[in-house]
Amino acid sequence: MSVLLACDFDAADWAAWRPALQAALPGERLLLPQDLAAQPALREDIDVAIVANPPPGLLAGLPRLGLIQSLWAGVDRLLADPTLPAEVPLARMVDPAMNTAMAETALWAVLTLHRHFHLYARQQRAGVWQALPQLRADEIKVAVLGQGQMGGTVMHALRQRGYRAAGWRRGEPLEPVLADCRIVINLLPLTADTRGLIDAAFLARLPARASLVNLARGAHLVEADLLAALDAGQIAHAVLDVFHQEPLPPTHRFWRHPAVTLLPHAAAQTDPRSAARIAAAGIRAWREGRTVPNQVERSRGY
Amino acid sequence: MSVLLACDFDAADWAAWRPALQAALPGERLLLPQDLAAQPALREDIDVAIVANPPPGLLAGLPRLGLIQSLWAGVDRLLADPTLPAEVPLARMVDPAMNTAMAETALWAVLTLHRHFHLYARQQRAGVWQALPQLRADEIKVAVLGQGQMGGTVMHALRQRGYRAAGWRRGEPLEPVLADCRIVINLLPLTADTRGLIDAAFLARLPARASLVNLARGAHLVEADLLAALDAGQIAHAVLDVFHQEPLPPTHRFWRHPAVTLLPHAAAQTDPRSAARIAAAGIRAWREGRTVPNQVERSRGY
Repeated sequence: MSVLLACDFDAADWAAWRPALQAALPGERLLLPQDLAAQPALREDIDVAIVANPPPGLLAGLPRLGLIQSLWAGVDRLLADPTLPAEVPLARMVDPAMNTAMAETALWAVLTLHRHFHLYARQQRAGVWQALPQLRADEIKVAVLGQGQMGGTVMHALRQRGYRAAGWRRGEPLEPVLADCRIVINLLPLTADTRGLIDAAFLARLPARASLVNLARGAHLVEADLLAALDAGQIAHAVLDVFHQEPLPPTHRFWRHPAVTLLPHAAAQTDPRSAARIAAAGIRAWREGRTVPNQVERSRGY
Repeated sequence: MSVLLACDFDAADWAAWRPALQAALPGERLLLPQDLAAQPALREDIDVAIVANPPPGLLAGLPRLGLIQSLWAGVDRLLADPTLPAEVPLARMVDPAMNTAMAETALWAVLTLHRHFHLYARQQRAGVWQALPQLRADEIKVAVLGQGQMGGTVMHALRQRGYRAAGWRRGEPLEPVLADCRIVINLLPLTADTRGLIDAAFLARLPARASLVNLARGAHLVEADLLAALDAGQIAHAVLDVFHQEPLPPTHRFWRHPAVTLLPHAAAQTDPRSAARIAAAGIRAWREGRTVPNQVERSRGY
């Protein structure tokens, strides 16, 4: 049997992923979509697919497919493909190295907002020398939306630095979490329940001049509502890593908004070195009849 | 007896410091330099001076002065006054809250350089969407110059986030600390030995494309040598909080250099709430004949 690699990598990505996957899967025959196009009979031979944004419909044409292992943590885009085989187990990537990278980005954003480093950058461009008020970390409350492994890692990193971190998961009341918070960090999975959660009504519940950090998915946020809240000064600043359309279109107002710090979906990149080993361990577990870790519950969407 | 407050505070500073000092020193009579100018006889009554950049010569005119308590951690400017009474004990400010603030700034600078957030800011201004390579923290070696309380607090914060932090103190060989380091953080006290330490020869010993973070004193750095190393691309980036002249003159090249992140001497501001209590405890210790903590050894300069 063979393993299909269905990943929308560019040449630079492949340069990192190919050796990592080959090293992690030494006994496996690895095929690419172009191999199937050249020899359609090979489709019969594939029992495992390692995927990262696979072409819609591709997996539906694999009669013996028994496991789909995603290289990404978020599987919302995969689940949006109506032809995705419903009965095949699907595992998402849960990599401690990615949680750590996300915690680095979240902590950097909180330190930036707490200690005004984004404002010092603006002052530098304007030639202004002015120290700004300095609060202690324990005077800053941070609301963390999402209490999975990433949310937990971020909460731990913030508390280690003395911040008051308050976690929220779907179904709990939002009010006590958002009360008095200076910064909201979104780390929710994108599901039917959480799509569009951060809209004008949500933003209006935040204390005046709070800041937003969106590190999850662009579709959690109603972008026009955030722009209105930033323009009105109700929200002080936004750090945004994800967008409705990626790459963010050149004409989008986020690019040049003075109250927006924009990242190119780089808050937590999958590290091929560790992720390839984790994907291989999932495949080995499946081959040996053991439980595959981090299987997606399709009904809840993650 | 009375306590002289000789501090070059502006109105906003005084608004924070006056209530903090009054609350911390409830039984003390507090005088200002203008009180002495109006009533010169009051000079006889002063046995303690709380200072922050006092006017040169002022302390020499106080016949009963028994203790000088600085509100700043660095006393290089104070010791540069040749009229400073040589026999009067001098205590500098050692405040855990200030060490924590310094660790926040150092960690923010390291996260910025490690995860390329300064480059993403430049990409945002240029309209470029491009994720950059992401290393793990344990692949980043950070050299920390200075192993006092601030250096120790910074080392701990970096190691907590997984960085390889290597400390250096004066008299030790520099080579093993600088070898393979990606980032150098300066937290040394300014003394005759450390003035001008970071010059062309020092920068040439760093690995190519390393970055410099100067959070100590401007005079540690030969600014022209850093500019040459930045222009040549030998040093990738500099985060600078302190300068030979402060405020940094408007025409200085650091303001507009694309490889310089400039802070207005704000890396670790003294927090009046905690520092006033610490100064008061030092004064109480002296009044009660106990050892005053954090006394400066004038021969070594800190």
